[in-house]
Amino acid sequence: MNAAFRLEKDLLGEKDVPQEAYYGIQTLRAVENFNLTGVPLSHYPKFVVALAMVKHAAADANHQLGYLNDTKHGAITQACQKLIDGEFHEQFVVDMIQGGAGTSTNMNANEVIANIGLECLGHERGAYHHLHPNNDVNMAQSTNDAYPTAIRVGLLLGHQSLLDSLSELCDALGRKGDEFASVLKMGRTQLQDAVPMTLGQEFHAFANTLREDLQHLERMAPELLVEVNLGGTAIGTGINADPAYQRLAVERLAEISGMPLRPALDLIEATSDMGAFVLISGMLKRLAVKLSKICNDLRLLSSGPRTGLNEINLPARQPGSSIMPGKVNPVIPEAVNQVAFDVIGNDLAVTMAAEGGQLQLNVMEPLIAYRTFDSVRLLSRAMTMLRAHCIEGIVANEAHCRSQVEHSIGLITALNPYIGYENATRIAREALASGRGVLELVREERLLDEAVLADILRPENMIAPRLKPLAP
Amino acid sequence: MNAAFRLEKDLLGEKDVPQEAYYGIQTLRAVENFNLTGVPLSHYPKFVVALAMVKHAAADANHQLGYLNDTKHGAITQACQKLIDGEFHEQFVVDMIQGGAGTSTNMNANEVIANIGLECLGHERGAYHHLHPNNDVNMAQSTNDAYPTAIRVGLLLGHQSLLDSLSELCDALGRKGDEFASVLKMGRTQLQDAVPMTLGQEFHAFANTLREDLQHLERMAPELLVEVNLGGTAIGTGINADPAYQRLAVERLAEISGMPLRPALDLIEATSDMGAFVLISGMLKRLAVKLSKICNDLRLLSSGPRTGLNEINLPARQPGSSIMPGKVNPVIPEAVNQVAFDVIGNDLAVTMAAEGGQLQLNVMEPLIAYRTFDSVRLLSRAMTMLRAHCIEGIVANEAHCRSQVEHSIGLITALNPYIGYENATRIAREALASGRGVLELVREERLLDEAVLADILRPENMIAPRLKPLAP
Amino acid sequence: MNAAFRLEKDLLGEKDVPQEAYYGIQTLRAVENFNLTGVPLSHYPKFVVALAMVKHAAADANHQLGYLNDTKHGAITQACQKLIDGEFHEQFVVDMIQGGAGTSTNMNANEVIANIGLECLGHERGAYHHLHPNNDVNMAQSTNDAYPTAIRVGLLLGHQSLLDSLSELCDALGRKGDEFASVLKMGRTQLQDAVPMTLGQEFHAFANTLREDLQHLERMAPELLVEVNLGGTAIGTGINADPAYQRLAVERLAEISGMPLRPALDLIEATSDMGAFVLISGMLKRLAVKLSKICNDLRLLSSGPRTGLNEINLPARQPGSSIMPGKVNPVIPEAVNQVAFDVIGNDLAVTMAAEGGQLQLNVMEPLIAYRTFDSVRLLSRAMTMLRAHCIEGIVANEAHCRSQVEHSIGLITALNPYIGYENATRIAREALASGRGVLELVREERLLDEAVLADILRPENMIAPRLKPLAP
Amino acid sequence: MNAAFRLEKDLLGEKDVPQEAYYGIQTLRAVENFNLTGVPLSHYPKFVVALAMVKHAAADANHQLGYLNDTKHGAITQACQKLIDGEFHEQFVVDMIQGGAGTSTNMNANEVIANIGLECLGHERGAYHHLHPNNDVNMAQSTNDAYPTAIRVGLLLGHQSLLDSLSELCDALGRKGDEFASVLKMGRTQLQDAVPMTLGQEFHAFANTLREDLQHLERMAPELLVEVNLGGTAIGTGINADPAYQRLAVERLAEISGMPLRPALDLIEATSDMGAFVLISGMLKRLAVKLSKICNDLRLLSSGPRTGLNEINLPARQPGSSIMPGKVNPVIPEAVNQVAFDVIGNDLAVTMAAEGGQLQLNVMEPLIAYRTFDSVRLLSRAMTMLRAHCIEGIVANEAHCRSQVEHSIGLITALNPYIGYENATRIAREALASGRGVLELVREERLLDEAVLADILRPENMIAPRLKPLAP
Repeated sequence: MNAAFRLEKDLLGEKDVPQEAYYGIQTLRAVENFNLTGVPLSHYPKFVVALAMVKHAAADANHQLGYLNDTKHGAITQACQKLIDGEFHEQFVVDMIQGGAGTSTNMNANEVIANIGLECLGHERGAYHHLHPNNDVNMAQSTNDAYPTAIRVGLLLGHQSLLDSLSELCDALGRKGDEFASVLKMGRTQLQDAVPMTLGQEFHAFANTLREDLQHLERMAPELLVEVNLGGTAIGTGINADPAYQRLAVERLAEISGMPLRPALDLIEATSDMGAFVLISGMLKRLAVKLSKICNDLRLLSSGPRTGLNEINLPARQPGSSIMPGKVNPVIPEAVNQVAFDVIGNDLAVTMAAEGGQLQLNVMEPLIAYRTFDSVRLLSRAMTMLRAHCIEGIVANEAHCRSQVEHSIGLITALNPYIGYENATRIAREALASGRGVLELVREERLLDEAVLADILRPENMIAPRLKPLAP
Repeated sequence: MNAAFRLEKDLLGEKDVPQEAYYGIQTLRAVENFNLTGVPLSHYPKFVVALAMVKHAAADANHQLGYLNDTKHGAITQACQKLIDGEFHEQFVVDMIQGGAGTSTNMNANEVIANIGLECLGHERGAYHHLHPNNDVNMAQSTNDAYPTAIRVGLLLGHQSLLDSLSELCDALGRKGDEFASVLKMGRTQLQDAVPMTLGQEFHAFANTLREDLQHLERMAPELLVEVNLGGTAIGTGINADPAYQRLAVERLAEISGMPLRPALDLIEATSDMGAFVLISGMLKRLAVKLSKICNDLRLLSSGPRTGLNEINLPARQPGSSIMPGKVNPVIPEAVNQVAFDVIGNDLAVTMAAEGGQLQLNVMEPLIAYRTFDSVRLLSRAMTMLRAHCIEGIVANEAHCRSQVEHSIGLITALNPYIGYENATRIAREALASGRGVLELVREERLLDEAVLADILRPENMIAPRLKPLAP
Repeated sequence: MNAAFRLEKDLLGEKDVPQEAYYGIQTLRAVENFNLTGVPLSHYPKFVVALAMVKHAAADANHQLGYLNDTKHGAITQACQKLIDGEFHEQFVVDMIQGGAGTSTNMNANEVIANIGLECLGHERGAYHHLHPNNDVNMAQSTNDAYPTAIRVGLLLGHQSLLDSLSELCDALGRKGDEFASVLKMGRTQLQDAVPMTLGQEFHAFANTLREDLQHLERMAPELLVEVNLGGTAIGTGINADPAYQRLAVERLAEISGMPLRPALDLIEATSDMGAFVLISGMLKRLAVKLSKICNDLRLLSSGPRTGLNEINLPARQPGSSIMPGKVNPVIPEAVNQVAFDVIGNDLAVTMAAEGGQLQLNVMEPLIAYRTFDSVRLLSRAMTMLRAHCIEGIVANEAHCRSQVEHSIGLITALNPYIGYENATRIAREALASGRGVLELVREERLLDEAVLADILRPENMIAPRLKPLAP
Repeated sequence: MNAAFRLEKDLLGEKDVPQEAYYGIQTLRAVENFNLTGVPLSHYPKFVVALAMVKHAAADANHQLGYLNDTKHGAITQACQKLIDGEFHEQFVVDMIQGGAGTSTNMNANEVIANIGLECLGHERGAYHHLHPNNDVNMAQSTNDAYPTAIRVGLLLGHQSLLDSLSELCDALGRKGDEFASVLKMGRTQLQDAVPMTLGQEFHAFANTLREDLQHLERMAPELLVEVNLGGTAIGTGINADPAYQRLAVERLAEISGMPLRPALDLIEATSDMGAFVLISGMLKRLAVKLSKICNDLRLLSSGPRTGLNEINLPARQPGSSIMPGKVNPVIPEAVNQVAFDVIGNDLAVTMAAEGGQLQLNVMEPLIAYRTFDSVRLLSRAMTMLRAHCIEGIVANEAHCRSQVEHSIGLITALNPYIGYENATRIAREALASGRGVLELVREERLLDEAVLADILRPENMIAPRLKPLAP
C-alpha cells in the first residue's frame, strides 16, 4: 500500500484516502459522485462555521447527558473551534450540489472533525476507533436535522453583513437625498415629462424604498430562521435520541452561535418544510427587484452626456471603450442589474427545490442552501459595490436639471388650477407644436401676472401639496 | 346620427358611444386599444368595489373641503354605493392588461360613476357638464394614486376569504391528524423506508406547515397593503392637491372599506414602488409551494390500489377513465398542483413587472394587479376545493400501513441502540437479500428477548424520543 | 323529478343534468369539482374545434374498421362538424385548470358530441343507448391519447394567425426602416452616446430580429406538433385498439385538420412527454423577450417631449392623464411589455407542469394546454395591436435626431483614425467640460481641413465600414 | 516604487500592477470593481480559449490587410496559441458578473495577450509601446463585437462534449431498454395502476425522449451560434473598420476554431440581439425538464425496498444514513434533479438579462455568458454522472414486477373487450373491496375459458395493439 494513502472502510467497501486529507472515505465517495458545479462547500465559510457549531453543540449535549466521555468531547469541541476560527476550511471539498439531502456535507464535517480531533488527541488520521465520525461526532444526529439546522445558523451568521451593506447603502442614498435637496428637476411618468420634483426627493425615495426591506430583513429573516429541528433525528420523531437531548443541544447551539435559536414546534413538519427558505429567498428577490429598478433609474438619469437625460453623473470607474474615446459607462449599476437577475434566477431554483420535497424529507436541500447562500452573498457584495463605487460619487447636473424644468411642457400642470384645464391644454399643444416655452406663451397671453407666476413656480411651491395661493 | 349611440369627446377627438353604456369615450378607446386577455375588469369584483370606495372617499374629502357641491357629491357617492353593492359591474369592460399604468381602469370607473350619478340626478348619460368624469369624479386624484390605492384596498377586501379558505383547510387537516393518531405507518426519506411514525403525525405536519402561512398572511399582508399613496397625485408630490386632502381622503377610505389604512410616509417612493406586491406574491408563491408539496404527498400516499403505496384513499370525485374500468384518480390534488404552478408563474410575471418600473411610476401595475388578484382567487378556490372535495373524505388503510411497518427493514433502526450498529446492518442486509422479516431474524438469532422487543416496538415508543428502556 | 332536468348515471352514481345542456353528468361533476380560473374551455375556440376534429377522425377510423355502424358514425361526424363550424362552443363549460389529465375535457367533448348527435338522430338528450359518449364517441380512445392530440391540433390551427401577426409586424417595421433610411441619429450603447447610425437601420434591426423568430416559428412549431400519439390509448401500448386503428385515425385527422400529422414513433414516450410544449413555450418566450426589448426601445426613443430622447413620436391612442394636460403616453408598447411578462410567467407554469409528469402520464397537461393557448393568443393580439395602433403611425423627429448627432461627443470616434486616439480623447474631454462641440474644437485647432472633415462626416460615411478616405 | 509592481496608465489615471501579472491596469480596475460571484473567467476554459481564437483571427485579418506588422502579428498569434493550448488561464481573473457589457473580459484578454506577446518578443511586461493591448491586440474590434463572438465560439467549442454526454446517456438507457425487454410490469397513470407494459418499453421511452433533444441540440444550437457579429465594431455599423476586415476575420475565426462560422446578416441587429442565447437556454431548460422527469421516475421506481414500488434497484453509491443501518439512497438522480432546477433558474436569469437590453447593446451579456456556460457544463457533467454512476448499474426486480401485474386490478382492462365494461367494472370493484385477485374472480365466475384467458394475458399480447383474438 502506498504511504501517501490510508485505507478507510464503510458500508460499501474500502477506499484509499490521501494521507494528508482530514476528510475520509465518505467525503471521497461524494467527491467522486458529484462533480457538478466545481463550487465546493468551502466557498461559503459561514456554512462551514455553522456546521462546526452544530457539531459542537451536539457534542456538548451528548457529553452532558453522559453519552460522550471527556476525552472525545474535548477532541470534538477543540476541532469544531478550529473550524469556527477559520482553519481547515479547505477540507470541505464536496460539491455544493449533491444528492443525499446533505448527507455528504454532514459526513464531510463529521470526518474532518474526527480527524482534527484525532490529531488533537495525538492519534493518526483515520484511527476512528478512538474517535468515530458517525458514532461520536454525529452522535444523536441525523443529516436530516443537523444539516438544515446548519443552513439556518449559517444564514443567520451572514445576516448582519447583509443588513450592514443594505443599511450603509440606504444611508448613502439618504445623504445624496439631502445633498440634492435643492436640485429642481422634472419628474417623469411613463418616461414622459410629468411635473417638477427635486433630485433630493428622488434619492430619498430610493433610500426609503430600501429601508423598508431593511426593516423586513431585520425582523423577518431571523424570525424565519431561529426555529431549528435539531433533535428530530431521521424524520422528526426523534427516534433513538434521549428525550433531554433536543433542549440541551439547541440551548448550546444558541450560546455558541450567539443566535436566539429555539426548537421547532412540530419536528416532523420542520424536517421536510422548506417554507422559511422560500420566503427568505422571496425577500431577497424583492430586494433584488428594488435594486434593479434603482440601477435602471441611475442609468437612465446618467444617460448622455449629450443625447440622454444627463441629470446626474456617475463616478468613472474604468475606461468605457477601446474604440470610442472618452466614453465612460455606468458599469457599477449594470453589474447590480445582473446580480439582481441572478438572484431572481436563484429564487426560482429554490422554489422548485422546495416544491420537490416528498413525504418526510426534502432531498433538494443542498440546492436550496447553495442558492440561498449565493443570493445573500451576491446581494451583500453588490450593495457594497453600489454604494462605494457609485452612489457616493454621484454629482448632479443642477443647471441642466433646472433648465429642463423651465423648458418643460409639464410646468403647465402647476398652472392648471389658475388658468383652467382648457387653457392649459391649448397652451401645452401650442408649446409642443411650436417648440416654444410654456411660460413664454402664458406671459404672451397675459394669462397670469408675473407675481402670481413667480409664486406658483417657486420650487418649494411645486414639489408639495399647497393651497391655491393668490386666489381668487 | 344613430339613436343607439351618443357622441362623446376627449382630447383626441370624438367617438360614438353605445347609448346604453354607462362607460364613456375613454373606456371605449381602451377597449379598442387593448384586446388582449379577454378578461375584463369585472372578472375581479373586489377590484371594482375597491375602485368605487376610492372614488367615494375622494368625493367625501373634496366635499368636506368645499371643492365639490352637495349635488355632485350626492350623485357620486350614490353611484359608488351601487358599485359597492355589486351593481353595474358589467360596465367594467376594459381588459385587465392595458397600457397607461391603469389610466383606462381609472377612467372606466370615472365614466361609469359619472353616468350612474347623472342617472341618479335625472340627467342623460353623457351630460358631463352636470357631473364630469375627470373634473368631478376624479377630482384631486391621479391614476397614479387612485389606481394603486384601489389595488391595495381590493386585495384587502379579498384577504379574509383567502384566510378563511386556508384556515378551514388547516382545521380539516388537523382533524384528520387527530383521526389518524393511532395509524402506525412507515416514514420515508428520499422515498426510501425510514422509521415508523403515525399517519396522524403526517397530517398534523400538513396542518402545521400551512398554519405558519396562515399566521404570516394574517399579519403581513395587511401590514404591506394598508399604506396607501392616495393624495400623492401625479408623482407623489401632491401637486394641485389641497394640503388637507390626503389625510381626509385616506381616513374616509379607511372608514368606507373597514380597513386600517394609513398614508404612505414617502409618497414619491410609494407612487413607483411595487415592493408590497412582490412580497405578497412571494408569500402566495410560498403557500402554493406548500400546497403543491402536500398534494404531491397525497397522490403518493394514495397511489395504487395494488402497485402503489396505498396508505390512504382519497374520495372518488369522478370516474377516472373511459378505458380502464374501476379507475378513480386523485383529480383534486392534481388540480391544486396546477393552480400552484400557475401561481408561481404569476409570481414571475409580477416580479418582472415590478422590475420594469422606471423613474416616478411603474407602468406595469395593471399586470401586477391582474396576476395578484388572480393568484389570490385561485388559491382561495383551490384550498376550498381541496378541503371539501378531498381532505375531508380521506380514509386510512390502517391494516396495510401497520403491515408495512411490520415488514419493513427500517424497523431495525429502532433496535439499533440494543443490538448495535454492526448487528443491525448485518440483519438489514440479510432481510433485504432473503425477503424475510427483520423481527423474524432477530428472534431467530435470539438477539433480544421477547419482552424487550415488544416494548421497543410499541408504537408509542417508536414515534418519539425515549430513553433506552430496559438496559442492564 | 323536475322537468328542467334529466337524470344521468355514471360509475359514481346519478345526477340531475339541466335538460337544455348538451353536456352530461361527467361534465357536470367536473364543473362542480373545478371552480378555479373562471375560464372555461370555450375561451379557446381552436381547442374546441381540435377536439371535434379528433373525435371525427376516430369515428371515421372506427367506422372504416367496422366497429361503428353507419348511423352512429353519421351522427358523430355531423355533431363534430357543427363544433368545427363554431356551433355549441358554449357547451364547453369545464374550467381550463382541472385534475384528471384532461379527462373532463375529453368527457365534455364526448358528451356534447353524443347529445348533438342524438338530436341529429331525433333522440332526446341523454338517450345514450342510441349513442354513447364513452362507448361510441370515445371508442378506441383514451383521454391520454385524444387530449394531447387535440392540444397539438389546436395549436396548429392557431399557428397561422400567430405567424400572420408576426409577419405583418415585421413588414410594418421594415417599412418604417425604409421610411427612416435617411434619418441620421446617434446610436447608444449602455445608454451612453456612441456613434452615428440611421433610424432606418434601427427599425430594420427590429424587423430582422423578429424575422428570425418568424422563421423559427414557421418551421419549428409545426415540426414539434405534427407528431401525435392518437392510437396509443391508455399508456401508449395501444391496448384494446385494433392494430390498424392508429394509422387510419391519424390519416383522417390529417385530412380533416389540413395539417401534416404523423404518428409518434414511440407512443409510450409520446404519451407522457411534454417536451414539444416546453420548447414551443420557450420559443414564444423568446418572441416575448424580443417584443419587450423593442417596446422598451420605442418607449425610450419616444420619451419626452422635452426631457427625454424625443427621437420619434408614437401615435396618440388615448388621453394620457386627467391631471396633466396634453400628456400622451406610449400605452401600446406598455401593454406589449406586460403581455411579454405574462407570457414569460406562462412559460414557467408550463415548465413546472412538464417537470411534474410521473411515469406513464403527465397529469399537468391541462395547465400546459391552458397556458400555451393563452400565450399564443396574447402574442398574436399584442403584435397586431402593436403594428396597427403604434408602429404604423410612428413619425421621426428628424431635425432633432440630426442635431443630436452634430452636438454629440460621439462624433469624435469617426475622427479617431485621422487625428489619433490621444487627440481624440483630449478633445472629447474638453468638449464635455466646456459644453462646446467636438467639431468646433477640431476646427479651432485646425486638426483637419474642412474638405476632409466634411467627407468624414457625411452620413453615408459614418454608418458603414469604409477605407480611410483621404490618407496621404 | 516597489519592485514587485509595475506602473500602468489608462484614461482614468495610474495604478500599480503586480509585476508577475500578465493582466494589466484595466483588468485590475475590473477586479476591484467587481467582487461578486467569486467565480473568475478562468472557471470556463472554453470561453478563455474562444477569446484567444477571436483575437488570433482579428490579428490575422489586420495583418493581411497591412495594418499589423509581422512582428506584432507573430507575437499576438503566439500568445493566443498558448491560451488555446491551455496556458495562462489563471490570468483571467475578472468576475463572471461585471458591468460594461464584457469590456473587462475583453480587456483582460487584450492585456494578457499583449504581455505574453511582449514576453515572446523579449520585452518586459507593460512595455506596451512595443505591443499595445488596445491599439494592436484589440485592433478593429470593439468589445461589442469581439465579446459576443467569443461567447458563441466558446459555446460551440463545448457543444460536442454536451452532445457526447447526452448521446452516451441515450445509449445507456437504450441498452437497459433492451435488457429489460421481457420484464413485464404495471404501467401507471396518475400514480394509479393502469395497464401492463414492459420495463424495457419504459427505458426505451427514456432513451427516445432524450434522443429528440439530442437531435435538436445537434442541429439547432450550431445553427443559432454560427452567425457572429465580428466586424460590426461599436454598434454594428462597422465604423472605423476596413470594409474587407469582416469577411477576413470571420473566415480566419472559422478556420482556427474549426466551426462553420458566418457573418451575421444585419450587424446592428446582431449587436444587441440575445435571441440565440434565449433559445439555447430554452433548449437546455427543456433537456433539464426531461432529465428531472426521468430522475423523478427512477426514484419512484426504486422506492422501497419494502414500502415503495421497488421495481428496480439503483446501484449503491454511498452509505445513505448514519442513523438508519442499511439505507442506501438514490443520490445520483437526486443530484440531477437539483442540477435541473439550477439550469431552470439559469434560464430565467438569461431571459431577464436578454429582456434588459436597450437600444444598440445588451449590457447584460456577461450574465448571459455566465449562466449559459454554467448550464451547459452542469448538464454535461450531470448526464455523465447519471449514466456512469446510476443507469448502467440498474437492475430490475423482475419477479416483483411480474407479481404486481398478476395481482393488479388493472388487468381487467385487458379483459374488457371480452367480458364487457359492466362485468369488468363489477369485478374491479369486487377485487378492490375483497382484496382478491381479478383473475381469481373471473375464473370463479367462469367468464372466460382458460385458453382464452391465457392468450389474453400473454405478455406480448398485453403490451401492444392487437385484434380481439378468439372471438366470439
